[in-house]
Amino acid sequence: MPRWEPQTRDRLRDAALELFLAHGFDNVTVAQITERAGLTRRTFSRYFTDKRDVLFAGSEKLPAVMAAAVGRADPDLPPFTALLTALAEVGDLVADEHAAERRAIVAASPELQERGLTKDAAVTRALAGALEQRGAEAATAALLAPVGTAIFRAAFARWAEQPERASLADRIRETAAELAANLEPAATPGGQSRPAAGRAAYER
Amino acid sequence: MPRWEPQTRDRLRDAALELFLAHGFDNVTVAQITERAGLTRRTFSRYFTDKRDVLFAGSEKLPAVMAAAVGRADPDLPPFTALLTALAEVGDLVADEHAAERRAIVAASPELQERGLTKDAAVTRALAGALEQRGAEAATAALLAPVGTAIFRAAFARWAEQPERASLADRIRETAAELAANLEPAATPGGQSRPAAGRAAYER
Repeated sequence: MPRWEPQTRDRLRDAALELFLAHGFDNVTVAQITERAGLTRRTFSRYFTDKRDVLFAGSEKLPAVMAAAVGRADPDLPPFTALLTALAEVGDLVADEHAAERRAIVAASPELQERGLTKDAAVTRALAGALEQRGAEAATAALLAPVGTAIFRAAFARWAEQPERASLADRIRETAAELAANLEPAATPGGQSRPAAGRAAYER
Repeated sequence: MPRWEPQTRDRLRDAALELFLAHGFDNVTVAQITERAGLTRRTFSRYFTDKRDVLFAGSEKLPAVMAAAVGRADPDLPPFTALLTALAEVGDLVADEHAAERRAIVAASPELQERGLTKDAAVTRALAGALEQRGAEAATAALLAPVGTAIFRAAFARWAEQPERASLADRIRETAAELAANLEPAATPGGQSRPAAGRAAYER
């Protein structure tokens, strides 16, 4: 019986990604993947639960990894700065050489996009919990966490579209800066000056 | 055969909301709802498809209503201001007298929360499309739309928790102002000055 070999895993993953990209995730079977890799179904089962697992292996850890990164950030940082520091740190872990291909495959499949929503919701819950652990108000944590997830997703899309794919962490910081610039003039629509009242109401 | 009567619909809805709040959505049957309302299953079927429909009737229109409100906003407004104006306008439509009860019922049921994610994703897609229609860059629209949805959800939670439930539109503007205040110092983590580079990269 052969030992567990990283090359075998990589062959299966490469074959799967090629087929998913060419034919769409929904139209590819495990049999087609193993045939293309020149390996058996039994070998596939040693490395992956099913064809989804080729795309999502490891991603179940993302909520905990994100929460831990928020927890590690300097306790003196304000909550959004801590969140952004954590997103940038985790971003460079997530952005491996196949991340852009995985993203394109997920974007083309309604079933996988649905799963992506559930994953993002789990990340958002973990971020909110970690911000509260740092002492943020529950209402502030519940607002900043989904915004962090939105920044991460938007930055990831931009990173994946760049041919050079320099650094996801840089894209995350740029995206957050762009969001801040967009929000700045809009906080007081119709010329009403409401920020002070808003903060007072929620920062008891 | 009786005519369609609003009072009958209200009796069924009130009975359903009371039972959902008391026992949890998953544990309540249509038979229990009709029994409590003193009506028949056949009558229930004239007003609602199933027990979920009692909670979500009309919500399938929300994406289109949101998009139309973004489209109606003054064309000279910057994209986030237009988005916020639309959220506030729709907010006061959504915040009816039973909205807080519906929210509590959904929050207590994993099945309904999953459905809520799908609904929110549809709203986000509609907002992004409407922002692009107004001339926003696709990347900017894809960033601002989920942030708009996050502001709407957070504001709705705050509104529902207030005993007086004054105005959801006010809570939306306050929540956006709070978000802007939180983002301000964080756009340049570690003291690096990146906003200009970020904007230049995406605003070709």
